[in-house]
Amino acid sequence: MALIVQKYGGTSVGSIERIKAVAERVARVRAGGDQVVVVVSAMAGETNRLFKLAAQLSDSPHPREADVLVATGEQVSAALLAIRLQALGYPTVSFLAHQLRLATDSRHGNAKIRSVEASRLIEALAAGHIAVVAGYQGVDPKGDITTLGRGASDLTAVALAAALKADACEIYTDVEGVFTADPNICPRARKLGRISYDEMMEMAGLGAKVLQLRSVELARRYNVPLVVRSSFSEAAGTWVGQEDKSMEEVMVSGVTLDQNQSKITIAGVADRPGLAARIFGPIAEAGMVVDMIIQNASADGRTDLTFTVGRDDLRGALELCRLMAAEISAAGVRHEEQVAKVSIVGLGMRTHAGVAARMFRVLADEGINIQMIATSEIKISVVVNAKYGELAMRALHDALLGKGSNATSAESV
Amino acid sequence: MALIVQKYGGTSVGSIERIKAVAERVARVRAGGDQVVVVVSAMAGETNRLFKLAAQLSDSPHPREADVLVATGEQVSAALLAIRLQALGYPTVSFLAHQLRLATDSRHGNAKIRSVEASRLIEALAAGHIAVVAGYQGVDPKGDITTLGRGASDLTAVALAAALKADACEIYTDVEGVFTADPNICPRARKLGRISYDEMMEMAGLGAKVLQLRSVELARRYNVPLVVRSSFSEAAGTWVGQEDKSMEEVMVSGVTLDQNQSKITIAGVADRPGLAARIFGPIAEAGMVVDMIIQNASADGRTDLTFTVGRDDLRGALELCRLMAAEISAAGVRHEEQVAKVSIVGLGMRTHAGVAARMFRVLADEGINIQMIATSEIKISVVVNAKYGELAMRALHDALLGKGSNATSAESV
Repeated sequence: MALIVQKYGGTSVGSIERIKAVAERVARVRAGGDQVVVVVSAMAGETNRLFKLAAQLSDSPHPREADVLVATGEQVSAALLAIRLQALGYPTVSFLAHQLRLATDSRHGNAKIRSVEASRLIEALAAGHIAVVAGYQGVDPKGDITTLGRGASDLTAVALAAALKADACEIYTDVEGVFTADPNICPRARKLGRISYDEMMEMAGLGAKVLQLRSVELARRYNVPLVVRSSFSEAAGTWVGQEDKSMEEVMVSGVTLDQNQSKITIAGVADRPGLAARIFGPIAEAGMVVDMIIQNASADGRTDLTFTVGRDDLRGALELCRLMAAEISAAGVRHEEQVAKVSIVGLGMRTHAGVAARMFRVLADEGINIQMIATSEIKISVVVNAKYGELAMRALHDALLGKGSNATSAESV
Repeated sequence: MALIVQKYGGTSVGSIERIKAVAERVARVRAGGDQVVVVVSAMAGETNRLFKLAAQLSDSPHPREADVLVATGEQVSAALLAIRLQALGYPTVSFLAHQLRLATDSRHGNAKIRSVEASRLIEALAAGHIAVVAGYQGVDPKGDITTLGRGASDLTAVALAAALKADACEIYTDVEGVFTADPNICPRARKLGRISYDEMMEMAGLGAKVLQLRSVELARRYNVPLVVRSSFSEAAGTWVGQEDKSMEEVMVSGVTLDQNQSKITIAGVADRPGLAARIFGPIAEAGMVVDMIIQNASADGRTDLTFTVGRDDLRGALELCRLMAAEISAAGVRHEEQVAKVSIVGLGMRTHAGVAARMFRVLADEGINIQMIATSEIKISVVVNAKYGELAMRALHDALLGKGSNATSAESV
């Protein structure tokens, strides 16, 4: 008998018919003798509907109250799925965050989980019940409802799997697993059979939306085996876990593309110690995330400082940069609203030399100029002109992942 | 500085525009210096929408989970109103039942309130906040969500007003107060300025839908002054409180009509002790409420037993009666699916003789036959043929309430 945590996303419970299908799937697992905890998202579209109601009442809805509002989406899904499972003859109880003491800090809209009390879940499972948990929500020290950020029902599932020491945490979504690249852009993208936590974290951080970065981090910390699979098919999905020897034999596991980046250059800055801190300190304080940074040393003691930020933060970052440019007597501030960040990820890079060189060669062969480069142990990212983003991704995928890997082809699944 | 509890029903918060209007009204009271606790129902139609979703998943949705589902309706209203009040510049916090420890028993769908902890509300008010509370819901000893029954947001408001020793509990609805009769049936119906708890309870029990019976009972027990008024106008509404001398001078305060009653007769029953208990015991056990009962003693030692039940219970009651009729060798069971119960209510009946005689005379003058009669200290009810119900109501209203009373005419408000 295994203990399985399953998480179903918004499209998976997006209609009455879909909820019935999910119930059938859960019921089959339970009928097979396993214990099941199900975490659900709000029905697709519901969270947006609620935010739109709030937007009609306030330009900036109070965060505490916005959380009270949108948390109802998951509550409705949990109750409906429990009602269906009961109707199928499976004793089921639903739980909200405050009933499980899913404790978070008080940062409404983006709260961090502090602890989970598994006792009520363990009781319910021991009594032979299926437990259905409303995802995405928590409760702060005052007893107020918090939410964990968009897409954070994954996080709820992983946290519960960790607390329950579950045998697996299955993340059900509308795609069949983790792919070597976005199949909408790379027709030859293939589903990965297995991938390590580290690679998955890089890919999630780089814009592959199948799993939320924080969820993978948490899964790695507590060694929770994740399975990403589709609730619309019986295909096996992708297993995400600790790396093993065989994984290192694969040089590149995936190619990602992030088209949501802007580039800012502060030109003609006096090249002296402490300047980067002076520039990036206020930006960090304003809660904006700077991604890649390069600095070109120059002969005359002045330098250009270039960095990328998310496009949502462009306007705010520009304002700060212009203020600072004046203060530090820089020559000026330039920006490009949209650039493309293309990355390759793979454990094998640690041991295979020459991956970067091959990457740059592929791009050169396509005539694509590289604007910025950043590397980590298992990742190389380049920034290119936005219009070449998809071409770069396809070219890199087909050159580095085109033949032989642990993935099955997208068309065959 | 007064402490006011205001309750807004489903039509009062039925749209974004209506929520804005309610927020303006609440804000005006707060701006005047009073402390305000607002209790809200679900937006009109929302509870039915949720029940319909559940009905698509189960023929008899599990009561615990149905409560988790429908409680979201009030949660959404509370959050939206709080968001609007914040946007208007009034510090506001919303509360759900579990946050106020609004403790109930575990009878899901129809739970009874056991206690309320006012401390969080008192804190919020002391801090200068407006408190918005989701009505209709409670929390049972296990920490599970319960609901208090249809229309029970009134009950939440009265319970909070009692716990807070509020100066008034204002019930906002889509009518302007308590009327001497249903204005849709009696064009000459007038709004009452004041009415006693006892009269209001009789009228609520008799089908006047403006206030829920349990709420008036609770208000009387804790001496909470109620005001029933419209959220769509500035009219003064009806005050419901302890009786005073002036109220007794009014002989009849209102006329009610309940067309939702059925009549059952068990004919030819042996007239011996214990028979009524034998017949009505099983009906009560099945949760059906028997209203009026009459028994005609007869010369030959056999009797006819006639009683009324709500039409929803007719089928079930008939089945039980047929079983029992066979057991006790009664001659047979007859029924009438729809009868009309017309009642007059007034404190003055205690001291004014001859009201019953006047009532019977009015009906006789209209040629309406009386099938059953029941009286209490401040009420007289008669059952008549369903087709004469509205006529009987109009005739009684105009004869007994036509001239001079403490009411203002419906047309003038």
